[in-house]
Amino acid sequence: MGAAILSDLLTVILIPVAAVVGIVFALVQWTFVSKVKLSPEQQPPASGNKNGYSDYLIEEEEGLNDHNVVVKCADIQTAISEGATSFLFTEYQYVGVFMVAFAILIFLFLGSVEGFSTKSQPCTYSKDKTCKPALANAIFSTVSFLLGAITSLVSGFLGMKIATYANARTTLEARKGVGKAFITAFRSGAVMGFLLAANGLLVLFIAINLFKLYYGEDWEGLFEAITGYGLGGSSMALFGRVGGGIYTKAADVGADLVGKVERNIPEDDPRNPAVIADNVGDNVGDIAGMGSDLFGSYAESSCAALVVASISSFGINHELTAILFPLLISAMGIIVCLVTTLFATDFFEIKAVKEIEPALKGQLIISTALMTLGIGIVSWIALPSTFTIFNFGAQKTVKNWELFFCVAIGLWAGLVIGFVTEYYTSNAYSPVQDVADSCRTGAATNVIFGLALGYKSVIIPIFAIAVSIFVSFSFASMYGIAVAALGMLSTIATGLAIDAYGPISDNAGGIAEMAGMSHRIRERTDALDAAGNTTAAIGKGFAIGSAALVSLALFGAFVSRAEISTVDVLTPKVFIGLLVGAMLPYWFSAMTMKSVGSAALKMVEEVRRQFNTIPGLMEGSAKPDYATCVKISTDASIKEMIPPGALVMLTPLIVGTFFGVETLSGVLAGSLVSGVQIAISASNTGGAWDNAKKYIEAGASEHARTLGPKGSDAHKAAVIGDTIGDPLKDTSGPSLNILIKLMAVESLVFAPFFAAHGGLLFKIF
Amino acid sequence: MGAAILSDLLTVILIPVAAVVGIVFALVQWTFVSKVKLSPEQQPPASGNKNGYSDYLIEEEEGLNDHNVVVKCADIQTAISEGATSFLFTEYQYVGVFMVAFAILIFLFLGSVEGFSTKSQPCTYSKDKTCKPALANAIFSTVSFLLGAITSLVSGFLGMKIATYANARTTLEARKGVGKAFITAFRSGAVMGFLLAANGLLVLFIAINLFKLYYGEDWEGLFEAITGYGLGGSSMALFGRVGGGIYTKAADVGADLVGKVERNIPEDDPRNPAVIADNVGDNVGDIAGMGSDLFGSYAESSCAALVVASISSFGINHELTAILFPLLISAMGIIVCLVTTLFATDFFEIKAVKEIEPALKGQLIISTALMTLGIGIVSWIALPSTFTIFNFGAQKTVKNWELFFCVAIGLWAGLVIGFVTEYYTSNAYSPVQDVADSCRTGAATNVIFGLALGYKSVIIPIFAIAVSIFVSFSFASMYGIAVAALGMLSTIATGLAIDAYGPISDNAGGIAEMAGMSHRIRERTDALDAAGNTTAAIGKGFAIGSAALVSLALFGAFVSRAEISTVDVLTPKVFIGLLVGAMLPYWFSAMTMKSVGSAALKMVEEVRRQFNTIPGLMEGSAKPDYATCVKISTDASIKEMIPPGALVMLTPLIVGTFFGVETLSGVLAGSLVSGVQIAISASNTGGAWDNAKKYIEAGASEHARTLGPKGSDAHKAAVIGDTIGDPLKDTSGPSLNILIKLMAVESLVFAPFFAAHGGLLFKIF
Repeated sequence: MGAAILSDLLTVILIPVAAVVGIVFALVQWTFVSKVKLSPEQQPPASGNKNGYSDYLIEEEEGLNDHNVVVKCADIQTAISEGATSFLFTEYQYVGVFMVAFAILIFLFLGSVEGFSTKSQPCTYSKDKTCKPALANAIFSTVSFLLGAITSLVSGFLGMKIATYANARTTLEARKGVGKAFITAFRSGAVMGFLLAANGLLVLFIAINLFKLYYGEDWEGLFEAITGYGLGGSSMALFGRVGGGIYTKAADVGADLVGKVERNIPEDDPRNPAVIADNVGDNVGDIAGMGSDLFGSYAESSCAALVVASISSFGINHELTAILFPLLISAMGIIVCLVTTLFATDFFEIKAVKEIEPALKGQLIISTALMTLGIGIVSWIALPSTFTIFNFGAQKTVKNWELFFCVAIGLWAGLVIGFVTEYYTSNAYSPVQDVADSCRTGAATNVIFGLALGYKSVIIPIFAIAVSIFVSFSFASMYGIAVAALGMLSTIATGLAIDAYGPISDNAGGIAEMAGMSHRIRERTDALDAAGNTTAAIGKGFAIGSAALVSLALFGAFVSRAEISTVDVLTPKVFIGLLVGAMLPYWFSAMTMKSVGSAALKMVEEVRRQFNTIPGLMEGSAKPDYATCVKISTDASIKEMIPPGALVMLTPLIVGTFFGVETLSGVLAGSLVSGVQIAISASNTGGAWDNAKKYIEAGASEHARTLGPKGSDAHKAAVIGDTIGDPLKDTSGPSLNILIKLMAVESLVFAPFFAAHGGLLFKIF
Repeated sequence: MGAAILSDLLTVILIPVAAVVGIVFALVQWTFVSKVKLSPEQQPPASGNKNGYSDYLIEEEEGLNDHNVVVKCADIQTAISEGATSFLFTEYQYVGVFMVAFAILIFLFLGSVEGFSTKSQPCTYSKDKTCKPALANAIFSTVSFLLGAITSLVSGFLGMKIATYANARTTLEARKGVGKAFITAFRSGAVMGFLLAANGLLVLFIAINLFKLYYGEDWEGLFEAITGYGLGGSSMALFGRVGGGIYTKAADVGADLVGKVERNIPEDDPRNPAVIADNVGDNVGDIAGMGSDLFGSYAESSCAALVVASISSFGINHELTAILFPLLISAMGIIVCLVTTLFATDFFEIKAVKEIEPALKGQLIISTALMTLGIGIVSWIALPSTFTIFNFGAQKTVKNWELFFCVAIGLWAGLVIGFVTEYYTSNAYSPVQDVADSCRTGAATNVIFGLALGYKSVIIPIFAIAVSIFVSFSFASMYGIAVAALGMLSTIATGLAIDAYGPISDNAGGIAEMAGMSHRIRERTDALDAAGNTTAAIGKGFAIGSAALVSLALFGAFVSRAEISTVDVLTPKVFIGLLVGAMLPYWFSAMTMKSVGSAALKMVEEVRRQFNTIPGLMEGSAKPDYATCVKISTDASIKEMIPPGALVMLTPLIVGTFFGVETLSGVLAGSLVSGVQIAISASNTGGAWDNAKKYIEAGASEHARTLGPKGSDAHKAAVIGDTIGDPLKDTSGPSLNILIKLMAVESLVFAPFFAAHGGLLFKIF
């Protein structure tokens, strides 16, 4: 077996140090962003080389000293920030009620497993040893659930704060050139990425160490209780994604339908009453929702790996460094991403629009390449050369280099998914150009081609996920899957940075338009935004790919904990679970899409009402009533997030309690294999439509110009596609990751209850 | 155990007699239809009570003696019929080549299992007995494959011939009233339904009896060879569905995009060059394709039941009546449907438009109620009171009443699916009305609501299928599933009749428009057609529901034959199969939708070219060049059906040969649980869009009138939805049934080869 090279003491020092380094780095980036002043009086001279940028990048100084514009930008930013903060507070009130209620539920369900007995019990896997009582598991699971939930909420909230701090600053920097604007948006994204990754790691590390004070040598119980952390993270992410998704798309669709289609005014025109709601939406949906989502994936894959490790040789022999392997990988990830970020901010410079996409792509490649090395180092120093991994009742012998491959293949599968997503959603390649071309014959062919594109874009990612699963499963069973998921998420800080950059740029464009800045500024922010659409799609690809691996790992952990050794498709209990599970993503999507549609209809009516009743609105002499539109989006999203949320949260409880663990296994497998397809196709279809529209608008090629300009029939058809894609790519699609992960982690947390008392219906008949 | 009440002799008499009765009944219906004369000179006096219709039903005699109209109708009919015949002949040439090639492949693969040895071998399941050599299995499987293929082609061809015979006759009868038109269309549908059901049964019965001459007491080998019949049926159906689907929708979308959207001329206007191709398409896609599809399901569920029965006590003890239980159920179905048809044609009369849908719904209810009784009788007289069914290695004891429940639950699940489909696709209910209402805010909300509707419509059918699976599986293992599928298909004659009625009415409307008949005639055919859209959706619901059950039964038979006893999701081989299998329907849909889109673009260009270059076309003074449009559809569909066809046909061969039977099991289960959802949602979304448009056009309610009239913005938005729905509901959606069935039956036929030589990749590494 042999011990790890890295000592336990060094391990418990290195992990928090890496997390703190990440936090400090985030704060440094924040300082750079904050140097862009929103109060015109204090505007300092351009800071020159300090930002890694020399002055010749300042293409244009137009309006630099226009104090009026700066004040306007600051006003708009304040409006957006206040709208977003107020929405998140409202959302968190409702979610807080749920959080408390669900925490009580966890305590009651898990406590009841052994009748709230305070007596120690034989361990589940090592029957000869004594473990802490089920009641302790109930209490600590509840606590870690609350910890995960609060960390998730804080992550989302911080992300939103940073984004609404950065958006107007990006607009102002766009006056100096596309490079300046890019770096401001990117740094802000990095602030969010690093804060989130580092916080997630730090809280998990502290929780494990605090829990250990009670659990002592009972690692099995300790890491079972820690799974609540993942459940907390993901359940908050569910509401963040769904609520935020409905908010943002109700506003976006509503604003576009009246503004762009009926009134023929540009996107983000300040005369449009829904424009503030639309910009708020980007921050609460794409930023806060995405942040919570990826934090959830990160927490869950760590928990899935830890719980399997605790019943493998790491846990049985109490090898601290080895069992903390997942956290060491994440710690290494923070350092790697830090170096990667410097490539975008300090080592190279963006001088032209066409360099933006390669720079973002470069981030992916650099982080993946460096991280491969990082994984190699961690696998070498933190793992014994040989160890055993729990494999559905048996122990499987694994070598450290095999585990290296498990993590690395997850990481590289992520890169493949990222590139495929880029190919299908960037308008630099033929798929999106074909979709744009199909707008010639109207909206119908645009939609048909767009749907077909989304379906097709599923193929390679699924093969990439399948290969990762096969390799990591073959090497190290379910633990292999869990660390493959971690591998895909190890560069989460960079992933989030390039992902958050998109909505920040989108907002920056909106602010430019609203502040009445020149057409050239808007062109620059549009270019940033187009690249942002692609990176958003890439981010969703990562989120979905990692969600697939995470859920499978959680599923494996659930099956182990529920003490079933096979999930046989040929038994009716499992097969009907599989079939119904595959249906759930459709049910869920139906709810969320209908919600967006209904909320958008309300928004349309309000916007129309304002245009019709407020005199001088179209002429720009009267101000619209932004607040009512913000309220419509808020109310709709709060109300509408409950049914889909209930569907996801109740399904495992109902199925587990009434039909038992076999059927629940089927449901988890079915929703996983079906949901991942819909999620990928929905987000790529939406991304492609958005960029097909931008392709026509930009008119950068001969072909694009034959389709344009703005307002042409082809462009109108493209706008319709874009609008349809909104709920697909920003509401139903990305929420599906959470559906599949959350049902799996919930099943895992409640597994002892289902195993003891589940399957009531079959017991009765 | 006890023997069956029905003697073997009576069984072999009753089955062919029922089939012959069905054929005679079809011919009688044909005679009634043929009484409507297309040559004006011989027009007889109205035949009064003979058709079950009295004269007061003749609401209007307008144009009855207008010889000119009759001649025009006859001309148009000839053009449609010739187009359809010529397309099917072209298609069959290509398909014929495939058929021969695949027959050779079957022979080589199955022959090679025992190295083309002509020596008898121990049976697979009863190792102590001697069975016929593997070479015989290869030869007879090949023969039954060819038989199934040819029967499928003949079914499709006959259906098309009947439909193109009936369409103009329906138009002419519409002059006398909606009741007359309805009965003509419905009788024609019945001709097709009964011919197909009876032929399928008769050919299968004869084949079994002929094969028995060679196989003698080796029933295991006999019924294994018979499975080729299902494979033949379904593989032809694949090309029929895909080729026909691409043909019809390329023409339809192309015609609508230029005609309705750009030129603002009505649907089916004779000035539109693509109008003949569009009408041909209905016959080759919705009629021939649907006929082949349902024939395939019928053949496969019979084969799946027979192959399992042959290794159960029925086969082991050589109980002929009991083993032919599936055929007896089908025979009973023909008689029940015959009585049911009389309710529509003779016992009751349709007097008004609003009675059409209830009449068609009545058909479903009556046939289901009567058939429940029929199943009871057959189960009582044809089965021993107790018997055993093969259950993955073991024998499970089953009682005859349990098998009754298996068949009956399939039948009733079909009815539930039918009603749910009706609810979601008929414009008499709120879902479609909501979709229509969303057209107020444009095409984008229409599409969002339509997609959400389709997703939602999946929920209840999936639960219905899941309950059927659970009950029938619990009672009688995989045999239970197979007979549940048969139960759902037992009323196939009625199902096909109401299904074929739709495209016939659609064509009738087209002919009325092209022949320049009055607006009132067109309104009547439109009313028939609107009901037809719903019945078409119901038919697709049946096709999908039965396909799900059939594939599961085939999957079970495959697993038994491949001698694997568990398909454990927790093994990586199976899980990656599951994941990739769930992806296949997306890949397939991407291909077929893109094909329709591309072919439609070509069609649009040609139609635009003709409008631009043929002087006097818009004014009606010059005739368009219909033939070129027919050729575009033909060429496109022939060329484009190959890649999706190859995907479906090659996947099981590649997976089985290189990855082995476990992975193949995963692929089958994955594609089944994923495909059934997409298929249901696609066809219901499309049906709903079509009827939302019709709802606005008809303007039958206060609400509908606020959205209309034709040409309003809301109507234009509805037309876009309708066009998008075309490939979903008529190409990709319904083809997916065949994907899931065909992969399963192909795996079953090739199972001995995969079991002996499969999994090459895993053997190498």
